[in-house]
Amino acid sequence: MSQPLFDKIAIIGLGLIGSSIARAARAQGAVREIVATARSPRTRNRVVELGLADQVVETNAEAVEGADLVIVCVPVGACGAVAKEIGPHLKPGATISDVGSVKRSVVRDMGSHMPKNVHFVPAHPVAGTEHSGPDAGFAELFTNRWCILTPPEGTDAEAVERLAAFWRLLGAKVETMTPEHHDIVLAITSHVPHLIAYNIVGTAADMEEVTQSEVVKFSAGGFRDFTRIAASDPVMWRDVFLNNKEAVLEMLGRFSEDLASLQRMIRWDDGAALEALFNRTRAIRRGIIEAGQDTEAADFGRPHGHDD
Amino acid sequence: MSQPLFDKIAIIGLGLIGSSIARAARAQGAVREIVATARSPRTRNRVVELGLADQVVETNAEAVEGADLVIVCVPVGACGAVAKEIGPHLKPGATISDVGSVKRSVVRDMGSHMPKNVHFVPAHPVAGTEHSGPDAGFAELFTNRWCILTPPEGTDAEAVERLAAFWRLLGAKVETMTPEHHDIVLAITSHVPHLIAYNIVGTAADMEEVTQSEVVKFSAGGFRDFTRIAASDPVMWRDVFLNNKEAVLEMLGRFSEDLASLQRMIRWDDGAALEALFNRTRAIRRGIIEAGQDTEAADFGRPHGHDD
Repeated sequence: MSQPLFDKIAIIGLGLIGSSIARAARAQGAVREIVATARSPRTRNRVVELGLADQVVETNAEAVEGADLVIVCVPVGACGAVAKEIGPHLKPGATISDVGSVKRSVVRDMGSHMPKNVHFVPAHPVAGTEHSGPDAGFAELFTNRWCILTPPEGTDAEAVERLAAFWRLLGAKVETMTPEHHDIVLAITSHVPHLIAYNIVGTAADMEEVTQSEVVKFSAGGFRDFTRIAASDPVMWRDVFLNNKEAVLEMLGRFSEDLASLQRMIRWDDGAALEALFNRTRAIRRGIIEAGQDTEAADFGRPHGHDD
Repeated sequence: MSQPLFDKIAIIGLGLIGSSIARAARAQGAVREIVATARSPRTRNRVVELGLADQVVETNAEAVEGADLVIVCVPVGACGAVAKEIGPHLKPGATISDVGSVKRSVVRDMGSHMPKNVHFVPAHPVAGTEHSGPDAGFAELFTNRWCILTPPEGTDAEAVERLAAFWRLLGAKVETMTPEHHDIVLAITSHVPHLIAYNIVGTAADMEEVTQSEVVKFSAGGFRDFTRIAASDPVMWRDVFLNNKEAVLEMLGRFSEDLASLQRMIRWDDGAALEALFNRTRAIRRGIIEAGQDTEAADFGRPHGHDD
């Protein structure tokens, strides 16, 4: 067990990410005391039942009282309102962070409510599953995943480093970049893939020639993996798209252009061009496996035993 | 061990599917003797090394000699040529099948080369992984997966039932439909999802603001799962798109329309419409889990231990 990096942490929002932070912080001895709060009484009760925090309180203001580290784990559209609420109650010298998948809007919405005497260091742990809520979290969620910090210019370097150390203790690898660059990178690696998955699952649901049960039955051919992504938290993702609108629309434009060109290859029987693209994408997969961001286990992630 | 359903099976093409059939047929005692062949000497040598067949021969004609069941496991674009080669050498009364992901073109391309005295029963086991070649196969690949049979009208019912029994013995669930319906269902549950995955991975590779290493690094946000699908066999998939052109282009048209509407929701900040769609797609995911076509294991398929 290491020396705690923070005395008291306040976690606001105990969904998949917030509850995983609570579990991981305790498992690693990263903090001495965990205070948790959530908007819904049902979530607060569940946090008590699961024993995820030392103290569960009813309001955000109460939660941040005396906390050395505050992590706001709510949908990005709600970050501004939470910041406004907690701003006047923050302990001088405290570090305030978040876990939002969009960073420009969080910097804008939360930043203006931060008093001068705290350290505001926005963060995005690039990790998740398609499940939501306090029961969905687990301590190893961040293991070997990246956590991106986007501190505003002039942020105290020591505060940034201490938050980085916290995330490393939770198993993450830390990288720092500007909010603008973050939002472009994540648009292509996360936001547009989610949008595409939601879209194709919606298209399939509307097919009249194909019954719903057929879509479900024969999903192992590839569709299954899209439904997994398209099962992610609806409110969280609604907020992501609305708050990273420019980058998402730009990437979507490129995606559609490329798709039109692919469509044309099929229409005109250009097998050589299709094969060339498919060989190129296969190489990217190899890069991801080599970078340790996925395993080589086969069958699109369906676990099975090999006996040969 | 059950009574063998066929005396001698000939498997033409020992890639992921062909080699899995060989392994599963042996594991289940479905046949008395397995004869295998493949176009490339490298694959044939590997089949010998892996001991997947009782006999490995050099030509397709030789392989089918005296076989009671012939399964052609090559890319759909090559099925016609193989049928032409084996047609004159087939044993009277034998059953001839395939494993192609497209059925209309296979019926058209193979059907004309089939002598009157054999049973031609096209099949499509809806199972696979992103890996290819004889080493990638495993005996449980078909367990709890669907195998779709598309026998031409007038095909001997007993021959169809015996092939169905063979697939059930290998662990699959069997369904029969017309080639036309098969091609529409699979266009939406498999072909278009693959095309979309190939496309977005290609779009990402072309991004100039985002380096390749960033795409790889932050892939855990969703992109990773697309790269898995986009790593599937290039030649197999080239042939699928070229041979199911009409259905794929039709579905792609619907997909693009829906995507344009989704794009508009984002541009005009229609959060309610986004959330409604995302809730709808989540429900489809539940259907797939309930149907046993995927597990509920979290984190987009990345295996991990839960300790909470």
